[in-house]
Parts: sequence; C-alpha cells; structure tokens
Amino acid sequence: MAPPTAIDIEGVTDTEAIVLPDPLTLNGVSARRAKAGKLVAGTAAFTSSDFFKGSSNTWKPKAKRWDHYLSVESRSRQPSSLKGAAKFLNNPGLISLGGGLPCAEYFPIEELTVKVPSPPHFSEQETKESGTVLKAGKYDVSGGHSAYDLSIALNYGLGTGSAQMIRFVTEHTEIVCNPPYGDWQCALTVGSTHALDQTFRIFCERGDYVLSEEYTFASAVETALPLGIKFVGIKMDAEGLLAEDMDELLTNWDAQARGSRKPRVLYTVPSGQNPTGATQSKSRRHAIYKVAQKHDIYILEDEPYYFLQMQPYTGPNAPPVPPPASNDEFLKALIPTYLSMDTDGRVLRMDSFSKVIAPGTRVGWITASEQIIERYVRHNECSVQNPSGISQLVLYKLLDESWGHGGYLQWLINLRLEYTKRRDVLLTACEKYLPKEIVSWDPPAAGMFLWLKINWTLHPASSSKSITAIEEEIFLAAIAQGVLVSRGSWFSADRSDFTPTDMFFRATFAAATGEKMAEAIERFGVAVRECFGLE
Amino acid sequence: MAPPTAIDIEGVTDTEAIVLPDPLTLNGVSARRAKAGKLVAGTAAFTSSDFFKGSSNTWKPKAKRWDHYLSVESRSRQPSSLKGAAKFLNNPGLISLGGGLPCAEYFPIEELTVKVPSPPHFSEQETKESGTVLKAGKYDVSGGHSAYDLSIALNYGLGTGSAQMIRFVTEHTEIVCNPPYGDWQCALTVGSTHALDQTFRIFCERGDYVLSEEYTFASAVETALPLGIKFVGIKMDAEGLLAEDMDELLTNWDAQARGSRKPRVLYTVPSGQNPTGATQSKSRRHAIYKVAQKHDIYILEDEPYYFLQMQPYTGPNAPPVPPPASNDEFLKALIPTYLSMDTDGRVLRMDSFSKVIAPGTRVGWITASEQIIERYVRHNECSVQNPSGISQLVLYKLLDESWGHGGYLQWLINLRLEYTKRRDVLLTACEKYLPKEIVSWDPPAAGMFLWLKINWTLHPASSSKSITAIEEEIFLAAIAQGVLVSRGSWFSADRSDFTPTDMFFRATFAAATGEKMAEAIERFGVAVRECFGLE
Repeated sequence: MAPPTAIDIEGVTDTEAIVLPDPLTLNGVSARRAKAGKLVAGTAAFTSSDFFKGSSNTWKPKAKRWDHYLSVESRSRQPSSLKGAAKFLNNPGLISLGGGLPCAEYFPIEELTVKVPSPPHFSEQETKESGTVLKAGKYDVSGGHSAYDLSIALNYGLGTGSAQMIRFVTEHTEIVCNPPYGDWQCALTVGSTHALDQTFRIFCERGDYVLSEEYTFASAVETALPLGIKFVGIKMDAEGLLAEDMDELLTNWDAQARGSRKPRVLYTVPSGQNPTGATQSKSRRHAIYKVAQKHDIYILEDEPYYFLQMQPYTGPNAPPVPPPASNDEFLKALIPTYLSMDTDGRVLRMDSFSKVIAPGTRVGWITASEQIIERYVRHNECSVQNPSGISQLVLYKLLDESWGHGGYLQWLINLRLEYTKRRDVLLTACEKYLPKEIVSWDPPAAGMFLWLKINWTLHPASSSKSITAIEEEIFLAAIAQGVLVSRGSWFSADRSDFTPTDMFFRATFAAATGEKMAEAIERFGVAVRECFGLE
Repeated sequence: MAPPTAIDIEGVTDTEAIVLPDPLTLNGVSARRAKAGKLVAGTAAFTSSDFFKGSSNTWKPKAKRWDHYLSVESRSRQPSSLKGAAKFLNNPGLISLGGGLPCAEYFPIEELTVKVPSPPHFSEQETKESGTVLKAGKYDVSGGHSAYDLSIALNYGLGTGSAQMIRFVTEHTEIVCNPPYGDWQCALTVGSTHALDQTFRIFCERGDYVLSEEYTFASAVETALPLGIKFVGIKMDAEGLLAEDMDELLTNWDAQARGSRKPRVLYTVPSGQNPTGATQSKSRRHAIYKVAQKHDIYILEDEPYYFLQMQPYTGPNAPPVPPPASNDEFLKALIPTYLSMDTDGRVLRMDSFSKVIAPGTRVGWITASEQIIERYVRHNECSVQNPSGISQLVLYKLLDESWGHGGYLQWLINLRLEYTKRRDVLLTACEKYLPKEIVSWDPPAAGMFLWLKINWTLHPASSSKSITAIEEEIFLAAIAQGVLVSRGSWFSADRSDFTPTDMFFRATFAAATGEKMAEAIERFGVAVRECFGLE
C-alpha cells in the first residue's frame, strides 16, 4: 500500500487539507492493542511512544531538526554510562550486580486499592454507592493479573515514565491530536511548571526573550526570570494573542535596542488562558502557527485547560446547548490543538492531569519531536527521574485498566458540563451585581477564569492617582468586603518598565460553591461601587 | 529557665562536648504533640519545621548567613505575588475567587487503602497474613478521622511539602540529628537527584568546581556538568575522603591555572558511599568538618544509605554480632551525621525514602538553615511544586498514623539486619571464588555496594595495554560469563583528563537473591582468572 502524499502546509490555506491515513480512533485502541500483544514492561523497562503509535506515523514526514536552537546546557547532556550498560540486561541468564535497585521484598506496601467512579456515574454520591474498587498487588505482573504492579511502580523507573502510562498518554494524544509529522513522542512530567523549567533550559540562554500573551501565567514568568529569561508580551483580544502583533514585534525586533537576540520561543496557553480566560479559535491558531513558521519560532503549547472547554454560553434566559451526544461528538467539539496542525514539529505540547484528575498526582506529559523528547528525557535522568510510581499506578488503574479511553472521555464530558454550570453561575451573578458602566467581561469558553475589565478612567481620582494605586484600592476594598480576587497586574508578561493602560481583576469559578460565588460577586460589586462613588 | 551555653566547636576537640537541652527523644514525641494540640492543615496550608521543633532550638545559636555564596539565579528568586495574597485567606468569612484550585468534588478517587506490615512482623509473608490495612477517605479531616485526607493530598500543595509530612520528617530529623544550631528547617524533595540539581543552582555558577570523593555517584557529576559545573575529586581511603587531601587541594588551589575560583561546595556521601562502599568514621567526619570551616566550604551531605549501616562484619567463621536490643541502642549505633555536628549551619543534608521505603515514592527531604530552605522552597514553587500528594498520603498513613517513629525505627533495624545478611553472602562468595592475588576489598559497613580492587599490574598485557582497555576486557569477559558489574571508571569525579592508576569494579548486594549473588561472583572469578591467565 502506497503512503498517501502529505501536503506541505505552506502551500495550502488550511491544514485540514492534509490527508493522513489510519488515525487512531477510540474504537481502534482495542484492535491495535490486540495486534501488539501483551504489554511486557518490568522494573525500569525502557519504553518509547514508538512502541504504541499507529503505522500511519511511519508514512508522515519527519519533524524539523532544532540543533541550532538547543542551549549550551542541553547540548552537553550525555547519556549515562551506567544506563548504557542496561543493554546487557537482555542477555539470557545474565545476573546483574550492576545497578543499585532495591529488592521489591523490602517495599512495605503489599497492596493498594482506590475506589473510583464507575462511568457514567461520576458524582461523589454515586461513587460512594456504586464506585469500583481497583486493586494493585505487589506481584500482579508475574501472577498474570495485570500489566503493572507495586513491585514495578515502587522501584526506580526511567526518564520517560513507565511504559504503562506512556502507552496510555500516547494513544490519548493520537486520538485527540494525531500530529501530522511522524516522529512525535511523549514523556511524562512531574507537572507543567517543572516541564517549563526544563524546556526553558533546553531552548534558551541567559538574556533571551520568550514571547507570550501580554497577560500570562505568573509562574511561567517567575520560572523564567531567575534563569535570566524575560517574557515579552504580545497584544491580545477576546481570542487571545494577536498573530499580527506577534508578526510585527518579530519583524521589527531590534536586537541592539533590546539587548537580546530575536526570540525563538513562544509560550502560549491557547484554551481558557490564565488569567484572561481567552480561547484562541481554530483560525487564530492557524494564523499564529503561520507567523511562527515565518519567523522560525518554536511553540510551547501549555494546555492545562484544554478539556475544560465548555458549552457555548447562551446567556441567563436562553436554554442551554445540549451536551455532546457521544465521545466522538465531544472530540469534534474541541478546538484543534497546535500539535494537530504541527507539520514542522515546532510544537512542544504540555498536558496535565492537574485540572482534569487531580493536581496532587503531580503527573503530566509533554509531546514533541523525538529529538526534543530525547533531550528532555536526558534532563529528567539528572533531575526528577520520573513522576511518583504510586501516582502512575493509581492513574494507570483508573484510566487504563478501569475506564479506558472511552470512560476517560466520558469523565471529561462530565467535567465540561460541571464547569459550564459553574461558569454560568458566576456570569449570572456578574450580570446581576456588577455595575456595567465600570466592569465588563467576555464570557470564557474554556478554563477556570473570568477576566473582569475595570473602566478605571471613571474613577473619581483617575487623574490624580496612578492606575496601580487605584487597582490596589479596589483590591483592598474587595478584601474589606470579604472577597479575594487577583489583581491583573500580577499577570503582566513584562515585569520591568511595564506601565499598564488597562485594569483587570481575575476571578475563578473553579473553587467556591455556586452560592458562595454569587455572594462573592455581590461583595465585589459593593466594593467597586464604593471605590467609584456610585450609589 | 536560663538557656545553657552552647560551646563553639572551634574551641573544642569533639562536638560531643556541646551541651544542648531537651533533644527530642522517641518517647518525647507524643508528649510534644499532645502539648501542641491537633494538627490543623488544610488544602495548600502554609507550614514550616518551626511549628514542630522543640523549644531547645530557640536557645541554640543561629546559622551563618550564606548571602555571599548564593548564585545569581538563586538571589533573583522572588516570592510570588499570588502566593503573597494567601495571607488574606485567614480573614474570617472571606470568599476566595483568587487561586485556581480545583474543587475536591472533581477528584475521581473516593478512597485509598494500603496494606502494610504490622511491626515487628515485617516480612512479605507476615504482611500478607497479618498486615494492617490503612484507609484514607476524601474528607477524613472534616469528619475528624485523620489529620490528612484525599481532598488535601490530591489538591495543590505548597513548596515545602505537606504540613503532615513536614511534621514527621522534622521530628525524625531532630531525633536522629538534633542539629546544634537553632534555625534549621526541612523541605520535602522529589528525590535527591533533583535536590542536587536545585542545590547546585543555588550555590554554583557556570565554571565552578565542586569537591567530592575521587570516585562518586555518577548521576551527581552528570547533573552538574550540563550546568557548567565540574567535580574535582579528593583522594580516599577505606574511610572515604581524606581530610588532609581536601585541605591540601584547597590550600594550594590555583584559580588561574584551574580557570576557576576556589571551590565553595563539597558533595559527599558519608555512609556506604556510592560506588566505593566507604563509610566515614565519626572522627573522619569531624576532621572534614574542620577543613570545611577552615576554607569556608558548604557541605552537601547526601545520605541515601545512612540507615543501611550494617552490623559489624565478623568474617565467615565467627558468630554474628547480636542486633540492637532497642530503638535507642540502634540510634546510638549509628555514626553521627554531619548535620548533628553542624554548629555553623554549613550543611545541607539530603535524606531519601528510596533505599529505606521505596524509590517509586519519589519523596525525600532536605535539612538546612532557614535561609537556604527558603531559597530552596522558592525554587520548588517554580519547578516541581512538591512531591506527589498520593505518595505523601501513603507515607503519612504508613509512617505517622500507623508505625509512628518507633515502628519506623524497628523497620530500619529490620532492614539493617537484612542488608547485613546480603552483604555477608556476597563477601563469603568473594572469599570463596575470587583470586586474592588479583582482587581485594574492604568489607562495607553501610550501603549497597562492594568495591573490588583489581591488581591490574599482574595482567599479562599490563605493559602494552592501557588500564582502561584492560578494565574493558575484564568487564566484557564478565558479561560473557553471565555477570554484569559496573566499571570503576564510570564513577570518576574528574571527567576530563583523568588517567586512572587503580582499577575497580562495583558489585551491588541489593538486587539479586543470595544464591544468584554467589553464582555471579563465581562467574566473575572465572572471568578474572581467564583475563589474567590463571589456572
């Protein structure tokens, strides 16, 4: 069978035109697994996404090489001699006195169980009543009961993460993103903030600038700054960062004036952006990708809120949009990822279980081209090694052995509807309690955050007090009324010589109950009215 | 009550002379906890070792300041604005729409159980039969059933780690080390290799040298190198690194010739050193500490094998030494830590659960002065955040709620005896199967490793072949015989222009069964004889 021709994205107006064979569908997983045979992966087993990807990937073009973008630090990472000796472990009959791996006999955990929801009964009450208890023993693998057990999970692992979890996230990534180049791979992370630290160290040198939205995840900026890396903000609208402004900024980059070479990396949160709640449309993503191609920018796609894309907002008086009727419909309703349009292999996507399972797992994963994943895994070997084996085992039992990909998508649909409800409660409260002439907002389509814009020019002291002082006044007035919201200036990408012209506050609809949220917004309304001298 | 006078270590020959009041003993824990009252620490609660330390610490002198040693990177770390706003969360009645913490309602784990040994019945068989099942629910804290639950463990935490685990490791550290200065603190890590990465970034700049044993943990060297930090090896004997050689090296440091300023940091593994198995005696540690004081060296005390100190080796025909009769006797049998003699606050000690509970927990902790811990925690906030909450919860249930400090020490005694048995099997096999004229060794007093010295000058090709070529020949001959041992040269501290004069192989007694170990050593003996042309 001849491979279909991949069409170069440069020549077409829409990446949808690229024809790719055999993408993994939900229904295809069982068949592929059956064909591959039983997963055999013991203690510290070598693994790779390549073991679990579809054959279609072998027909796709390879990713670009990024040798010229790798930092001095990343280029100098060598594979460890000891890990190199692992190849001899395959010799039949070999006895290893090589690696200092403790004996499973001395791990004082004989069995672990978790009680989890049985799809589609996801509520806490239902789980209490009809949840499923998943059990992991120490030697389930040699007993033939499972592909993963405590003896493996509790021992050392390799820098990719366990084969068991790499299989799951690789399949999930292929189902959701199906990257258009062939040599993509996944590696587990201990969370996206640490992934960012390592990624900056792969691509950047001291003195570099990284592009981002003008308001951005504060921890990303604070992770970069001590490394000598500054963020430079790109202007935004309701759909997030503006491709034209990015192009302009790069086209007119004055290395001399900036004291720094032209940026090579864009950090972006495309869906439910923190703090603005903005979600880039499909066409916006295409436009940004094209600008990235034009200026050869590497894209860090940070997507903790990707699956918190919500139902369209219909307003307080219109009926809600019916939920996705199936997993396939749900997948189709999601805005395509950068990874899904990444013909060049210029995207490193960060996924996280923090917002969709639990932050305390401290497990996430990245997807990028083989070259970048290899550098990342070398780095893991000399830092975090891999995420907690206990977390990995719990996630494997839940996501793979119990729910499967279908059950996981059902869970994500459930979460989508829950967050839709929460957002709608917050928006209803805003419409009811906030003075429209002062406070305005765009209903968020994804994420956890509402970005409230304050027309501060109407403040009685707007001509005598600085914008920052007025922001502080409102913040403290809100605290005095009994509500904590985050100040917009905390999220500015540019930390030095930044003079804001607009004023924002960020409110989350993730944490409080519906009733408390409404009360909180009412209090915020009182605080704002007070500061602006309104009735 | 007047505080007793602390005596400056410079003025005395032995740190034991320092009189300190009220050190925490095993029996003192319950009384102190009763006095402190119930531990109340919810989601992402702020915590500090200071909440859990004994009053004696307030009388001790404070640690030295290390401002002049902090790197550019570390100095530039600022507390996050968002985390600063957390102080308002204590306002009564305040509703927070601030932080984006997900609701526990959406964590799909309702209950978690682990089956663990009931002290003193630690074997796998006994655990199967009479183990204890520990259970954690989602809302055990609000239900009054526990001080820690899934709703807290599965959410975000702060950079110190959970209050629940910080309490345990702080008490444990006080029982074992009782640091002689007052403002010591602990912070959890995701493992000592990552702690090393962060610590190098706190103390070192590109181009720096770090002191270490001449043969050292390969991953430590490989963690430092990409940061532009080289290791410089200090000569060793059977008790590990030589204080005099360290003094000489530092006294004669030629910054110009080396192209680098005088080292400021010593990395050492004092007990059961990897790869040599050497254990520094108490007097050696004192001598090294004094040299560190003389040259103002900061000490990284990496102690994964501290509790794998074994019973004295009595040889194949003598009866074994009776095991410690009590927890107190066990504690007294341990060689004092650097932290326990650290009057200056110049030690950062790394502890790990990897070798004594399980590597897959990916939980360890560091102890150092408040200043350094604060810098470390700031760094955690912009990288790993904290270890897996699931791991922390499992460890808390096991170590704190079930075993307590006493049960944990019993477990460590059990481990001591198990490793003693394993070491003795390996040594017996060495005595039986290895040609004494070629291979020699010191019986290790701690750890997992035996360091076999090869008298390579007796090799038939010693005058024509390089030492490295002969090392490789023996390594491959052993592989051909069916045994993998690690080559000594893999562990050399100096990676560039290093010409070894001695030859070593490292064998572990941690991994294989007794029978397999004996067989492996027999095979190694055959390989050596073959290479050296012996009968």
